Amino acid sequence: MRPRFYVPDLDPVAERVALPDEEAAHLVRVLRLRAGDEVEVFDGRGGLWRAVVVQAGRTSAAVRPVEAVMPAREIGVRVSLVVSVLKGDKMDDVVRDAVMLGVSAIQPVVSQRAEISLATLARSRRIARWQRIAVSSAKQCGRAVVPAIHDPLPLDRWWTEKTEAARVMCVEPSAALGHVASVQDVPKPRAAHVIIGPEGGWTVPEVAAAHECGAILMSLGGRTLRADAVPIVALTALLTTWSELT
Amino acid sequence: MRPRFYVPDLDPVAERVALPDEEAAHLVRVLRLRAGDEVEVFDGRGGLWRAVVVQAGRTSAAVRPVEAVMPAREIGVRVSLVVSVLKGDKMDDVVRDAVMLGVSAIQPVVSQRAEISLATLARSRRIARWQRIAVSSAKQCGRAVVPAIHDPLPLDRWWTEKTEAARVMCVEPSAALGHVASVQDVPKPRAAHVIIGPEGGWTVPEVAAAHECGAILMSLGGRTLRADAVPIVALTALLTTWSELT
Repeated sequence: MRPRFYVPDLDPVAERVALPDEEAAHLVRVLRLRAGDEVEVFDGRGGLWRAVVVQAGRTSAAVRPVEAVMPAREIGVRVSLVVSVLKGDKMDDVVRDAVMLGVSAIQPVVSQRAEISLATLARSRRIARWQRIAVSSAKQCGRAVVPAIHDPLPLDRWWTEKTEAARVMCVEPSAALGHVASVQDVPKPRAAHVIIGPEGGWTVPEVAAAHECGAILMSLGGRTLRADAVPIVALTALLTTWSELT
Repeated sequence: MRPRFYVPDLDPVAERVALPDEEAAHLVRVLRLRAGDEVEVFDGRGGLWRAVVVQAGRTSAAVRPVEAVMPAREIGVRVSLVVSVLKGDKMDDVVRDAVMLGVSAIQPVVSQRAEISLATLARSRRIARWQRIAVSSAKQCGRAVVPAIHDPLPLDRWWTEKTEAARVMCVEPSAALGHVASVQDVPKPRAAHVIIGPEGGWTVPEVAAAHECGAILMSLGGRTLRADAVPIVALTALLTTWSELT
């Protein structure tokens, strides 16, 4: 596989495309590529091109796109993962796996039992970190789309945002306020928000609010999964149900 | 939730059941329980009981089972995870997640591109470690069954073992030797071995051998997943297809 580089503002007909600093450093210092070497560049919006290195200096690098190539197929449902921020570095794996499974965006939220505040999140530069992980994960899994990592919101604020997409909230089977669907009964939408709670789960008012907003409450079964495994299990189960894990 | 303890040779009608050393140490030193406190004990084969601590000494503890209680429901397909051993501590998460998803056994195998030998595995005491993780995962997810962790085998040796169970091998879509099924087309068996490769994937002869042994070759789609996420994705996708994630 050719090494891949992310160039957000890529112009595929340019004779010379400069790489962003971080990507240039990777090309020059880590992979030690030189003028004439073949690489791939992608724009994060679905475009992927074979390219040739035309310049590799000490701190900069440039390539010339040669021809469009076919990236990994995008899934047919626009899925946004809405996830209550987990402790420590657990979110790193969640971001990486969600990108590999094909989500189009990740919306971090802070719910009542989240163990981190919006202020702490803002100070910790974690959003920038998750964006870098999303880029690296897209490279690894062959996607030419880099999902957006949105700015964190309080969960109750998020519910007030207008959306045409289905909203599917993972709940414990015991959280029975109205009907709790099994994953294989969740109908395939054109777009969906998949909403996952923190280590301590949702509070009763949070589940009630979801129910009132018309969310589908979905259970992943009677066994308690660890919080950082729930996003990958929920996304996999929904994509399987919707015949999109192909 | 009452604290749960694992007692492999539990007699539910005994007046006094001594806990194994490790479990006793946990009861006494970590949780600081005393005579009269309520706990749960399970035998790892599906039996779970409410019990009362009748003795908590410096290095030992005993309980009296009071009544059977209902554990988390076991899935309706006996699934054994056959996994080529991954590097470092990545197998720890694989064992933990597979137990939470309901497997009945885990068979570590060493395939051609596995980066560890059987001899190194034997020296490293990792099997004992995975057994402890399986117990702890069963406790956390509410199962009263502790899946067996079998002794590692070379993959080619494993294929020679007789089985009535379906054999489903995860392959890259490009490994097209015969038909590669999508996960939603894998028929529901009564029992299945789900076979997952190492970081470097299978060799062509390994896929050919699986095909000749009548294994179902299954793809999880065109995006490359990281090796330690494949077991959880494959198990989740199959359980969803078989309506067992409920």
